[in-house]
Amino acid sequence: MAAILLARMRHMNRMKEIGWVGTGIMGASMARRILQAGYGLAVYSRTRARAEDLLRDGAVWCETPREVARRSDCVFSIVGYPADVEEVVLGEEGTLAGARDRIAAGEVAPVLVDMTTSRPTLAREIAQVAARQGISSLDAPVSGGDVGAREGTLAIMVGGERDVFERLLPLFGVMGKHIRWMGPAGAGQHTKAINQTLIASTMIGTVEGLLYAERAGLDLEEVIRVVGSGAASSWSVNNLGLRIASGDMAPGFLIRHFVKDLGIALDEAQRLGLALPGLALARQFYQAALAEGLADAGTQALYRVFQRLNSPPGESP
Amino acid sequence: MAAILLARMRHMNRMKEIGWVGTGIMGASMARRILQAGYGLAVYSRTRARAEDLLRDGAVWCETPREVARRSDCVFSIVGYPADVEEVVLGEEGTLAGARDRIAAGEVAPVLVDMTTSRPTLAREIAQVAARQGISSLDAPVSGGDVGAREGTLAIMVGGERDVFERLLPLFGVMGKHIRWMGPAGAGQHTKAINQTLIASTMIGTVEGLLYAERAGLDLEEVIRVVGSGAASSWSVNNLGLRIASGDMAPGFLIRHFVKDLGIALDEAQRLGLALPGLALARQFYQAALAEGLADAGTQALYRVFQRLNSPPGESP
Repeated sequence: MAAILLARMRHMNRMKEIGWVGTGIMGASMARRILQAGYGLAVYSRTRARAEDLLRDGAVWCETPREVARRSDCVFSIVGYPADVEEVVLGEEGTLAGARDRIAAGEVAPVLVDMTTSRPTLAREIAQVAARQGISSLDAPVSGGDVGAREGTLAIMVGGERDVFERLLPLFGVMGKHIRWMGPAGAGQHTKAINQTLIASTMIGTVEGLLYAERAGLDLEEVIRVVGSGAASSWSVNNLGLRIASGDMAPGFLIRHFVKDLGIALDEAQRLGLALPGLALARQFYQAALAEGLADAGTQALYRVFQRLNSPPGESP
Repeated sequence: MAAILLARMRHMNRMKEIGWVGTGIMGASMARRILQAGYGLAVYSRTRARAEDLLRDGAVWCETPREVARRSDCVFSIVGYPADVEEVVLGEEGTLAGARDRIAAGEVAPVLVDMTTSRPTLAREIAQVAARQGISSLDAPVSGGDVGAREGTLAIMVGGERDVFERLLPLFGVMGKHIRWMGPAGAGQHTKAINQTLIASTMIGTVEGLLYAERAGLDLEEVIRVVGSGAASSWSVNNLGLRIASGDMAPGFLIRHFVKDLGIALDEAQRLGLALPGLALARQFYQAALAEGLADAGTQALYRVFQRLNSPPGESP
């Protein structure tokens, strides 16, 4: 705590102008918290309409991520897919180019922090390319959903130089509650991949257990109450399980994005020489959810896939 | 609560002599609580040595489950496998025969409560056979491990006639904290099968996630701290995950018994016409754990199977 406070005192005054790239469900809420904490905010988003609320409250619009970086002491990006990260960070009009512009103008380069759930290998590549140009960067994916983003209670898993991480603690503290430095560049993304690996199989267990309950004629909420209080308990069953029981498939987290995350985790596992059959199975069923047209449903809509798997042909589950 | 108190007042005096069949890790601790609560206790166990502690404290030894039932107002059984349940309940020297003896002697038959994790179909068969002879029975498997058994904090999932369940609430209250009536005979066993279905895939996710963490060079405890506090959290990762991180494979729950439970869940799912691929996969890997000689290790030793799966031949993980 003393170290955090000291860091806060020493650097609070230096990091005044914050840049933000990406104002989706998560990004918009996180950026708002930065703005409300009294920082200046420069914003770029692929869809300007999604940034209007922030602009109304005092954020400054930029036409490119590069321009965002030119105006900022620290730039956060949180976009959709690894290809988007490549574009907004490494692209010609990306944040890295903007950071170089600042150095060319004799100013201090901003720290680049990517919070997208993306590839550990891409995080390391960005860190290496940036470091060669004297620019600091971190990978800092988050967990905790839209509620955590709004309330500033996200888990933030950070990879990169430890002293850079410590300098940014005051900013991370505005967005999250469980903030941990996990190791060198890529370690934040690895931790997020592990997080999604755990969720994937836990969701398989949850939907299979609840489908069994439904077929056995049991009351789903009663079952969740009893199994969710002991050794079978999980965030998944106690939160998403209850949504399944009430037929609520609205997204807390989109299946479309979860499929991306599972693909990243599997690719990285393969790169590490690891066979993870449970993860592979879960990914196949989430892939089937896409085929069922459930891309924009919540991850709990996996239940529909398992209902279909166990229904007579032509009969809707 | 009022209903529970009323039931307690009305029946506390009637249920004085309790019978107990099976004094394994769970059974011995549960029986001890009954004894300590002031009930009379008649005990049978396959291995008499395991009942000695109870006998020293005032329990009465019986040579057969039948004799236990002859002396009791209510008989609990908690043994190993469904075949053991058949023998101690339905066998010639079983509790059902003892209950019939009581009726023949003009006395009130004891209620028969099987707490073994066993087949829902067997629970229904016992209930039907018993009911035809005017004898009440319940299936009431538990969750919560050795600690829950000692401390009286078990989850108890009960199937059978609801009024019989309510009559036994004071006794269940001595052993457990989360006590729920789930439906007719077999519903308790179904709920337990669902409980184990959830745990099975959650354990797959846990060991795969931690193995990924190990290979990626991350600190396992740090990873558990961050992923175990959000959407990836589960009892498994926060308890057994930490044991894996410290190399502790000692049993809270034996792999040998978990394989039995998963077999029951899969058989019942098949009977219900359900394909549960995650459960089937988990069962295969726990089967592999038996082949690795891990029958008497804790369920977290599944980690060893996944380490082996991902190790060069001849190299111990």
